Amino acid sequence: MNTEQHPDIARLVISCPDQHGIVAAVSELIADLGGNIITLDQYSTGVEDGQFFQRTVFHLPDFARRRHQVQRQLEERLVPRFSMQLELTAAAEPKRVAIFASKTDHCLLDLLWRHRRGDLPMDIAMVVSNHPDLEADVQRFGIEFHHVPVDRENKAAAESEHLNLLHGKVDLVVLARYMQILSPEFLDQVGVPVINIHHSFLPAFIGAGPYQKAKDRGVKLIGATAHYVTEDLDEGPIIEQDVIRVSHADDVAQLTRFGADVERAVLSRAVKWHCEDRVIRHGATTIVFQG
Amino acid sequence: MNTEQHPDIARLVISCPDQHGIVAAVSELIADLGGNIITLDQYSTGVEDGQFFQRTVFHLPDFARRRHQVQRQLEERLVPRFSMQLELTAAAEPKRVAIFASKTDHCLLDLLWRHRRGDLPMDIAMVVSNHPDLEADVQRFGIEFHHVPVDRENKAAAESEHLNLLHGKVDLVVLARYMQILSPEFLDQVGVPVINIHHSFLPAFIGAGPYQKAKDRGVKLIGATAHYVTEDLDEGPIIEQDVIRVSHADDVAQLTRFGADVERAVLSRAVKWHCEDRVIRHGATTIVFQG
Amino acid sequence: MNTEQHPDIARLVISCPDQHGIVAAVSELIADLGGNIITLDQYSTGVEDGQFFQRTVFHLPDFARRRHQVQRQLEERLVPRFSMQLELTAAAEPKRVAIFASKTDHCLLDLLWRHRRGDLPMDIAMVVSNHPDLEADVQRFGIEFHHVPVDRENKAAAESEHLNLLHGKVDLVVLARYMQILSPEFLDQVGVPVINIHHSFLPAFIGAGPYQKAKDRGVKLIGATAHYVTEDLDEGPIIEQDVIRVSHADDVAQLTRFGADVERAVLSRAVKWHCEDRVIRHGATTIVFQG
Amino acid sequence: MNTEQHPDIARLVISCPDQHGIVAAVSELIADLGGNIITLDQYSTGVEDGQFFQRTVFHLPDFARRRHQVQRQLEERLVPRFSMQLELTAAAEPKRVAIFASKTDHCLLDLLWRHRRGDLPMDIAMVVSNHPDLEADVQRFGIEFHHVPVDRENKAAAESEHLNLLHGKVDLVVLARYMQILSPEFLDQVGVPVINIHHSFLPAFIGAGPYQKAKDRGVKLIGATAHYVTEDLDEGPIIEQDVIRVSHADDVAQLTRFGADVERAVLSRAVKWHCEDRVIRHGATTIVFQG
Repeated sequence: MNTEQHPDIARLVISCPDQHGIVAAVSELIADLGGNIITLDQYSTGVEDGQFFQRTVFHLPDFARRRHQVQRQLEERLVPRFSMQLELTAAAEPKRVAIFASKTDHCLLDLLWRHRRGDLPMDIAMVVSNHPDLEADVQRFGIEFHHVPVDRENKAAAESEHLNLLHGKVDLVVLARYMQILSPEFLDQVGVPVINIHHSFLPAFIGAGPYQKAKDRGVKLIGATAHYVTEDLDEGPIIEQDVIRVSHADDVAQLTRFGADVERAVLSRAVKWHCEDRVIRHGATTIVFQG
Repeated sequence: MNTEQHPDIARLVISCPDQHGIVAAVSELIADLGGNIITLDQYSTGVEDGQFFQRTVFHLPDFARRRHQVQRQLEERLVPRFSMQLELTAAAEPKRVAIFASKTDHCLLDLLWRHRRGDLPMDIAMVVSNHPDLEADVQRFGIEFHHVPVDRENKAAAESEHLNLLHGKVDLVVLARYMQILSPEFLDQVGVPVINIHHSFLPAFIGAGPYQKAKDRGVKLIGATAHYVTEDLDEGPIIEQDVIRVSHADDVAQLTRFGADVERAVLSRAVKWHCEDRVIRHGATTIVFQG
Repeated sequence: MNTEQHPDIARLVISCPDQHGIVAAVSELIADLGGNIITLDQYSTGVEDGQFFQRTVFHLPDFARRRHQVQRQLEERLVPRFSMQLELTAAAEPKRVAIFASKTDHCLLDLLWRHRRGDLPMDIAMVVSNHPDLEADVQRFGIEFHHVPVDRENKAAAESEHLNLLHGKVDLVVLARYMQILSPEFLDQVGVPVINIHHSFLPAFIGAGPYQKAKDRGVKLIGATAHYVTEDLDEGPIIEQDVIRVSHADDVAQLTRFGADVERAVLSRAVKWHCEDRVIRHGATTIVFQG
Repeated sequence: MNTEQHPDIARLVISCPDQHGIVAAVSELIADLGGNIITLDQYSTGVEDGQFFQRTVFHLPDFARRRHQVQRQLEERLVPRFSMQLELTAAAEPKRVAIFASKTDHCLLDLLWRHRRGDLPMDIAMVVSNHPDLEADVQRFGIEFHHVPVDRENKAAAESEHLNLLHGKVDLVVLARYMQILSPEFLDQVGVPVINIHHSFLPAFIGAGPYQKAKDRGVKLIGATAHYVTEDLDEGPIIEQDVIRVSHADDVAQLTRFGADVERAVLSRAVKWHCEDRVIRHGATTIVFQG
């Protein structure tokens, strides 16, 4: 159900060691506060042990004003009892997002356009690029564009500039075919999740020229994976994947075009789900409540 | 999570007009009874009104023995308060299923084989056919086969025989390419859900020879729809659909083969979901909790 | 193989009653002219009768200059002998296309972006709309935009204006969610193929509000069909179809968004294939050589 | 088009360095012999150089009797002129196939059923297994079953027995989840193509327990790859691939079941295309003419 327009809709995402009575305690508390549960998705990794995850969307009259009180109640009544991690958000308050791009436009334009149509519940705070090429495209959407060149010598300085631009302004960074590796220091300091998109093949091809390698090996599927960025490059928790069918008759240029199509679709879905608080990280994996 | 092996796993499926406190009341009651919720899927058709649906899978020590007590408690504490419809089942107790078939074997064999592998949580009570062709195949799986010929003259008598065979022995009837129309009287009296599979195209083709018509019209996708049978032939609530890509080079025989592939896959998924109590009928539609 | 950059690449698309020796005659003639076949796709509707179709891409040194000679030779040596219809085009010479749109931008923008990126081998001669809303978007791509309002009273006059705009300037008209029905007179006089996109469901829903109807019926797949426009509205030869999976949890707005995604993908593929001379109309169907 | 029933249908598959006039020479020769081309698929890896591939299906009256003459003509007139490799087969003469299996039945049974239904144009000469478990299933289809146990000590002897069983009796070996590695010596001596199926993931997981690893990594797609076996285990030319969508809620058992579904579908398609002479090996890749 589309609940983004309502100012009184809250989302609560929790995670804790499984035990009896969690759903009851949470739903009782929401009922006590005068709330009505609209959607509840829940998952446990085991029958009697393991980890418990829940996403609850509820309607609470006057939520905007009462938000801090609700947060306090949740923390007092749930956190100590269940050793719970919880996050309370307002559905009407969009995530603030920075998009990093380089020269290719397919992922960036898809995000900008879906955002303009109202399909992505987020505010785009800025676009950052190591190249100036996409500036005009971005500005036509009325969005700030920052050109921060990056090369081997200035990388640390460039990342400092990135951190200054982002500081306090964004809840999420999206790498929309940004062709620079982020340093562990940057990831430490950025303080918000970072989502990346990369091509994927069966089997995998390591290193440069993956589409040429895919062609040389005669793969029949071209794929893409959206994942959270960790220090293990291209190895963070997977949010979404998809593939597209190709044939021997497709040359490397055509494979690359198909790859662009699947990349932009997969990244847009991953960003949307993240902004709707549907994705919970759990070690090397994710729980994605698509309900 | 696979919960079919545990004798103490219960499933509760409920539906009622939406109001505050339903999730809380249900989860509190389960906690009071000593149960632990493993999976909870919930859906409402509107923010503050509409219909509320919930599927809850929970672990309750000694459930097999305590089942009637649990059922009574649920009925006393939930039904009057919420005008609730509820169904309590034991995950370890498979649905008893009758499969109706005619001459084509693809849907029937896929069900029998998946059942033998342990992929379908059901007991196959019998196979009923209006033709003898598939008898040997069925018996090799150690399953009863009943040949009940049907023609224009004996249709009422045949359906009486069907009702006698089924009476008290099954919880579900699956039409696995059964090429006879069930009468409204039969549907009234059978007392259990009936699932059917039929081919589907974009656009739809009415009447005989649909694959020839699909060929003549140059469709690029061949589909199948599994649905509950109602008196409106091929128009009952849809459980699952899928398609397969075809080309101008496929002749009618090949289109029919592709159709068989998608039919057996769609029917097997629909039967599995039904047997796991994942499908809730709601007027002309279904809620399917795939979590 | 990507052959669009080469000035000496010719495409020959033929159709005729099947008989012995067609492939031999065509390939011999090409060899005689000094050409080398790069790709040949061929299809017959029957073993010894029926209709024969062939798309041949060949390299012929100095083709641009010799094109008329080649056309004349083909006509003299093939048409009378085989009662053949043939079309000779230069791969390097893009089709000139007019795009008709109304207020929704998803199909239009997808075509404009892909075109800018070099993915669609066509020239966009103009965009025509019955509303002014998309003018700024179109002009940013440096493409002519014509606002031709259409209402019940001025429809004939508007279509005259359309014909004036198009006359001699385009090889194809693409309806990218153009929400006006073209009159039979317009279709008679426009003299070039017209491609349309529309939503498709299993089963089909006729009339207004199809996404609401799809929601009410609980469909699990949302589809789109690209087809050539004939006087039978939404019933012309199908070029391409695809679907996307949806669930009970998607509201009508979300179904409509999914519909937009599949519409733009299907339309872009259909336009690309048409512009590459891969699509041959044959009565109510098409042959699509995707090789 | 379905051409398997016709005794007079020939298939010619050729490969050679590209040069002018190949299509013409082949089609002329077929016309000279009195044949009529039904389907012609052709592909070159480059515009003016590279490798040329063609699959031609043609009708030739009295082909069964004239086959050796046709073969001789092709060899005399085409091989020296074009340095051509060619293979001439009769569509009505099915490939003779040996299926190797171990304990899991999903791939094996799918092949046996499709074969019985007439969907796979092949004769199953025998099933060979290193375990006795599937014997009853195989014999019900009236097919020879050979139990050849394999362990570390007797591997060479077992492979000798395999070679004896296969010698002169089969045109293709299909590994339907056969859990033994074939030695380079066996591959050298078997003298016919060997097709294998294995699971595939994005990213790839090496070694034992791949489904557990896929679960631990949170993959959203489970795939399978059918390929020709070479000495590089799981690295031979890819014939077909496909994937199925999974979610965090699927446990390892369910992932394995989905894997089985996609494996049997992919293997059956690969075997069918091979038996229809649609697959041409070219170094590490394949050309697959699906027309």
